Amino acid sequence: MNKFWQTCARCARTVRFSLSGRCGCGGTLLVEYDMERIRSTVHKSALKERPATMWRYKELLPLAREQSIVTLGEGWTPLLSMKPLERKLNVRQVWVKREEQNPTGSFKSRGFSSTISLLKEHGIDYVAVPSNGNAASAMAAYAARAEMRSAVIVPKDCPGIIIEECLRYGASTYVVDGMIHDASRIIEEGAQEQGWFHAGTLKEPGRVEGKKTMGLELAEQLGWMLPDVIIYPTGGGSGIVGMWKAFQELLQLKWIGGKLPRFVSVQEAGCQPLVDALRTGAFVPPSTETVTSKPTGLRVPNPPDGELVVQIVKQSQGTALGVTAEQIREAQMQMGRLGISSSPEGAATLAGLIQLREGGWITRGESVVLFNTSHADKYLPWTPPAAVPVIRSYEDLREHQRKAGRG
Amino acid sequence: MNKFWQTCARCARTVRFSLSGRCGCGGTLLVEYDMERIRSTVHKSALKERPATMWRYKELLPLAREQSIVTLGEGWTPLLSMKPLERKLNVRQVWVKREEQNPTGSFKSRGFSSTISLLKEHGIDYVAVPSNGNAASAMAAYAARAEMRSAVIVPKDCPGIIIEECLRYGASTYVVDGMIHDASRIIEEGAQEQGWFHAGTLKEPGRVEGKKTMGLELAEQLGWMLPDVIIYPTGGGSGIVGMWKAFQELLQLKWIGGKLPRFVSVQEAGCQPLVDALRTGAFVPPSTETVTSKPTGLRVPNPPDGELVVQIVKQSQGTALGVTAEQIREAQMQMGRLGISSSPEGAATLAGLIQLREGGWITRGESVVLFNTSHADKYLPWTPPAAVPVIRSYEDLREHQRKAGRG
Repeated sequence: MNKFWQTCARCARTVRFSLSGRCGCGGTLLVEYDMERIRSTVHKSALKERPATMWRYKELLPLAREQSIVTLGEGWTPLLSMKPLERKLNVRQVWVKREEQNPTGSFKSRGFSSTISLLKEHGIDYVAVPSNGNAASAMAAYAARAEMRSAVIVPKDCPGIIIEECLRYGASTYVVDGMIHDASRIIEEGAQEQGWFHAGTLKEPGRVEGKKTMGLELAEQLGWMLPDVIIYPTGGGSGIVGMWKAFQELLQLKWIGGKLPRFVSVQEAGCQPLVDALRTGAFVPPSTETVTSKPTGLRVPNPPDGELVVQIVKQSQGTALGVTAEQIREAQMQMGRLGISSSPEGAATLAGLIQLREGGWITRGESVVLFNTSHADKYLPWTPPAAVPVIRSYEDLREHQRKAGRG
Repeated sequence: MNKFWQTCARCARTVRFSLSGRCGCGGTLLVEYDMERIRSTVHKSALKERPATMWRYKELLPLAREQSIVTLGEGWTPLLSMKPLERKLNVRQVWVKREEQNPTGSFKSRGFSSTISLLKEHGIDYVAVPSNGNAASAMAAYAARAEMRSAVIVPKDCPGIIIEECLRYGASTYVVDGMIHDASRIIEEGAQEQGWFHAGTLKEPGRVEGKKTMGLELAEQLGWMLPDVIIYPTGGGSGIVGMWKAFQELLQLKWIGGKLPRFVSVQEAGCQPLVDALRTGAFVPPSTETVTSKPTGLRVPNPPDGELVVQIVKQSQGTALGVTAEQIREAQMQMGRLGISSSPEGAATLAGLIQLREGGWITRGESVVLFNTSHADKYLPWTPPAAVPVIRSYEDLREHQRKAGRG
């Protein structure tokens, strides 16, 4: 029996901890901890002696037993000072958080280390996720580490190298002729028959908690101070939710005080529902026919709780902006010339910084953290040699299983 | 003025510290430190509060000034316990050191963080390296970080994704119709005219010192104990030299005591000069026509100081063995199914473990560390879109420069 509960971010209802991340009202259930107990038993200075992984914050992760931890060595990624960018953009401090140095080559390692640990603790043995790519390969790796079965569904234009990763980690791998929400719908339809646990964004409480460690680390690595601005590439938005939650918890623990960072959500201009919602005040997912973004983690027309992400960005006095594919490409080249292997999503944060500094939204005296969420290599055009079934519906998936003699 | 000197591993002559790694006798010059001073000023328990990079061992790295450090966040990589391998192979302890989580996706980050730092401190502004791939892209990244120019020459069958990395980090990139020693010869020929500092394996003292941190970390991560066996994929061999040096220094500091690990050098059977030398007692580089190995970091027919590597392996009561491309491929699949993105070189260590356990050379009660030196993704077949000049000689390179209007 664990000692956590969950509160709905929309209706504020508090419930006993379960594996669901959704409230009956449609809101997102967020895990709560006994902060008084943590405050009285852990001093922040004691963290220095903890392992250099995200599990150094074990009291703030929702496992009942430490032996449930499924780790591949995730978190505590370098925070790199970028002097040439400070000079070039005339801004006081720019850091890059190097999330590509996680075990699966992306920030998605964090979310799935905690999710798979949690699912293992609760006896789940088969897990499925809809993803634009990096979440799929991360889930496949952690499921393999936990000796659990996994299935992933990604868009058919997902980078081939990431599909290859899913296969290598042993996931049942499908590509959908559609977008990430189509993949999610198929998993929902098949969950009962297949025995899948649906581990999509905000479907269960583990992922946000794992992502939260990015915020906890940022505070600790900066000596329990926070930057003025965090620029984060935003698709589903669980990273923003996670870091915002981290800062609330650090305030409750009195490990930090004072002003919190302004969150900037960067999206690609061809699919920017958060940018539009911030401008218009109402969240309206774009129809998928109008989406022109490249197949990256930024392409999420209909995030599971866009309202919550927009609300957090607003509350933080932050903003959201769309950058073009061309601006992303140029920023990626700049990152390379600075010695950093940067994914399009990571590079989008630099493109965002350039725009916001030029427009004066970020001022000269400020400090900024960019999140480089994944390695550049993963996005090189490549076709996996193994045939991956293309599906449009759950029925297609069943049909494929029947043909493969598994149905 | 720094406070280091160098001693030749062959003739034992001691000289003042310089940027040369070669002694007049043909031996390798290794850096020496004032160990008494370090022992009296640093306690090993104080390391716990140091940054989670290889620079936590700054007193054992040959920089005169801390501000010379060129870092991208390298080292202190996870050491992962592999329970399923322990069960399957019936051996007490198996760990994987996840070197692919370094900033450039390979263990080569370490050597070039220290080499480029050292070169920067000594005023070098243009550096060149012959490489099978990962050293080239690592050097290019660190040179970019140091705002230094770089040139790399790799074999023309080098993995295309790694060539792409070199281009992305801004290196002048050439492929040689030949092997790594042909690339080295071209750099030697052109060094003066081009203004290149030749940063090839064991050419300068920085690389071994950087690699050494793998050994220092292993000791610290295991609580100042060492495993019974270290299985290391061996090409040029500077990793073996570096770790052996690490253990000698830790003994001098009395930070460890007792028995040192047996080193196992794993090579690919189609190019195994170290294996042959250990068997025959004499080091004879194979003629390149007989080399059938795949283009990986293991393919080094003529390592710069093969005698030293063989001597260290022998002294440690270790061994060397060749594994086939097929065994490597199978081991790579096994690593994937355990959740680990493993390069062919990294997978070769598992193939080696399987053979040595089956043959009884490694016994049931022993502990073993495998080095996973790089990510699997880097080795996927891919052709970089940018044209990279193919050369056979330094004259070809000059000709290319003339045509490009740079000569």
